[in-house]
Amino acid sequence: MSTWRKAQELAAAQGIDALLVTPGADLRYLTGYVALPLERLTCLVLPSAGDPTLVVPALENKAAVASGVDVAIATWNETDDPYALVADLVGPATTIGLDDHMWASRVFALGAAIPGADQVLAGSLVQELRIRKDADEVEALRQAGLAIDRVHRRVHEWIRPGRTEREVGADIARAIIDEGHVTVDFVIVGSGPNGASPHHEVSDRVIQAGDPVVVDIGGTMPSGYCSDSTRNYLAGGTVPAEYAEAYAVLHEAQRVQREHARPGVTAESVDRIGRQIIADAGYGDLFIHRTGHGIGQETHEEPYIVEGNELLLEEGMAFSIEPGIYFDGRFGARIEDIAVCTADGLEVLNNTPRELVEL
Amino acid sequence: MSTWRKAQELAAAQGIDALLVTPGADLRYLTGYVALPLERLTCLVLPSAGDPTLVVPALENKAAVASGVDVAIATWNETDDPYALVADLVGPATTIGLDDHMWASRVFALGAAIPGADQVLAGSLVQELRIRKDADEVEALRQAGLAIDRVHRRVHEWIRPGRTEREVGADIARAIIDEGHVTVDFVIVGSGPNGASPHHEVSDRVIQAGDPVVVDIGGTMPSGYCSDSTRNYLAGGTVPAEYAEAYAVLHEAQRVQREHARPGVTAESVDRIGRQIIADAGYGDLFIHRTGHGIGQETHEEPYIVEGNELLLEEGMAFSIEPGIYFDGRFGARIEDIAVCTADGLEVLNNTPRELVEL
Repeated sequence: MSTWRKAQELAAAQGIDALLVTPGADLRYLTGYVALPLERLTCLVLPSAGDPTLVVPALENKAAVASGVDVAIATWNETDDPYALVADLVGPATTIGLDDHMWASRVFALGAAIPGADQVLAGSLVQELRIRKDADEVEALRQAGLAIDRVHRRVHEWIRPGRTEREVGADIARAIIDEGHVTVDFVIVGSGPNGASPHHEVSDRVIQAGDPVVVDIGGTMPSGYCSDSTRNYLAGGTVPAEYAEAYAVLHEAQRVQREHARPGVTAESVDRIGRQIIADAGYGDLFIHRTGHGIGQETHEEPYIVEGNELLLEEGMAFSIEPGIYFDGRFGARIEDIAVCTADGLEVLNNTPRELVEL
Repeated sequence: MSTWRKAQELAAAQGIDALLVTPGADLRYLTGYVALPLERLTCLVLPSAGDPTLVVPALENKAAVASGVDVAIATWNETDDPYALVADLVGPATTIGLDDHMWASRVFALGAAIPGADQVLAGSLVQELRIRKDADEVEALRQAGLAIDRVHRRVHEWIRPGRTEREVGADIARAIIDEGHVTVDFVIVGSGPNGASPHHEVSDRVIQAGDPVVVDIGGTMPSGYCSDSTRNYLAGGTVPAEYAEAYAVLHEAQRVQREHARPGVTAESVDRIGRQIIADAGYGDLFIHRTGHGIGQETHEEPYIVEGNELLLEEGMAFSIEPGIYFDGRFGARIEDIAVCTADGLEVLNNTPRELVEL
């Protein structure tokens, strides 16, 4: 069954008359169409009964057709009103479901064009489908994992004292493409104190001998599925003793989390079991973020591996396991793998050595 | 004056009590902060009077500080409710302005967290500022133009019969980074019939001798400003006669548009003067899109060079001039430069040869 038919069934069950989905991961998941998020309106109109229509700007018609979408296409010209076209396709409706990432300008324009209907968020409806990966999706994530692992195996070529994070990051970005991704989604090279900022990207800081360096990188494959893996490197010199002690704890915590995660346990329990090990060793205050996020056609999606998320993991759920320990002003460490639940366990998709890589 | 102070004045004049701005070009313009568009809420709270606050997830605090934002920062932890924090910072309000690209999920969450206030779109308010580039911004666009011109000067190394569009596109993507961009925003390599689809990207089509190839490419510079330029190549062989005739018309139309565009003329007049030349030559139905779009920290922003836009061009407005002629199923041609209005004329920022480049 095509994914849009499943979404249609869920919409009908929830009393939503039509789903409106603009460019992004939901649109790609439902139709296979990868549209740039530009100002001209592209919108899937998916009624809870009957056939869907993809509204596209006339100049993108050929691209939409070439992408092989299995729904009808309606085009609009440069001086037409695309919102009126969507309203015509929706017809009489009392409840309209919007994709979670739809732009505010479109939420407002659709509200004006379909004034009688209530707008509700429909992202969770599509996430309900996207959260369970089928065999093809798992294979796509497996290939993404292999590709980013190939990049990590080459990082030793580029990190050395005297080079800036930005220079190293540019080399890594090229390798992300060379190893099979179509886009570079993020490149974090956090050397020394910059490693203590989890979402640091790169800077002009010159890497020093003895710096621990956090390298967290990812891209999108031709399949649309994303990679994301973090490893830690030492740029020559000697490992700081306090860093080595914390690293051993982190390494053990992440291992235990991988052993624990499987169908039937809660998302939050994966976070908790690792956090406890880190806290018991006295680093609890230095693990300042959740353990992980789901991954698929978006780098961050459900399920989130975080305290408070009582979701029971199921076969096909894919997510990161990435605890970290951050010493403010000095250095940081994070070990991150993508993993997917199998029928009765966990398949880990990143498999380069998790130890500190001493260069 | 900092840009957020100017936005604050406009908000006050329009009766908006507070602007709420999430990651994107508006946030970067107002604060200098480049935040990834991820699921954790980052939001500038800019009241129409008093001091603004940037709400960021705790783990991004260091990145926000490092970006040098000139506003106070308030952080939230993984299990906090960031929308309640925003509501506290807004305080009593009757009208809240939202950035145009805010996600629907945030529009709804902010509506629930600030139930007494009307939500209005505030994108046009920030665009009112962003549409006029100052000298530093023009210089940034100039550098972006030089960088993408360097890429176009190397395209002859990669296009040849027997290679696929995708292979050529990968080479171009690497060059976009090598020549100074930090991200590859789009790579269109439209060979033969694929050139007739204006938003075609790349495919596995093998380029044939005698194919016209449309190459439309752009990226973002470290400054945050974008490049975008289109040139046309012939992959060996002989130019099809009908293509050559149409190309001469297109080349003349684009030249006349560049001569015409300047402060005091309307945006639509730039479109109209080129469209007339193309129509007079009998190709009117084959020019299926507007003439251009503004450009700055986004590739597509105001002003749009399109029929119906009566905006008078002013010094500092930057936009593309990119007419095209598309022969369905056969080939297409588009010539695109970025240009910026000076005090009394137009500075064109792309300057590689506009003739068909025969390889």
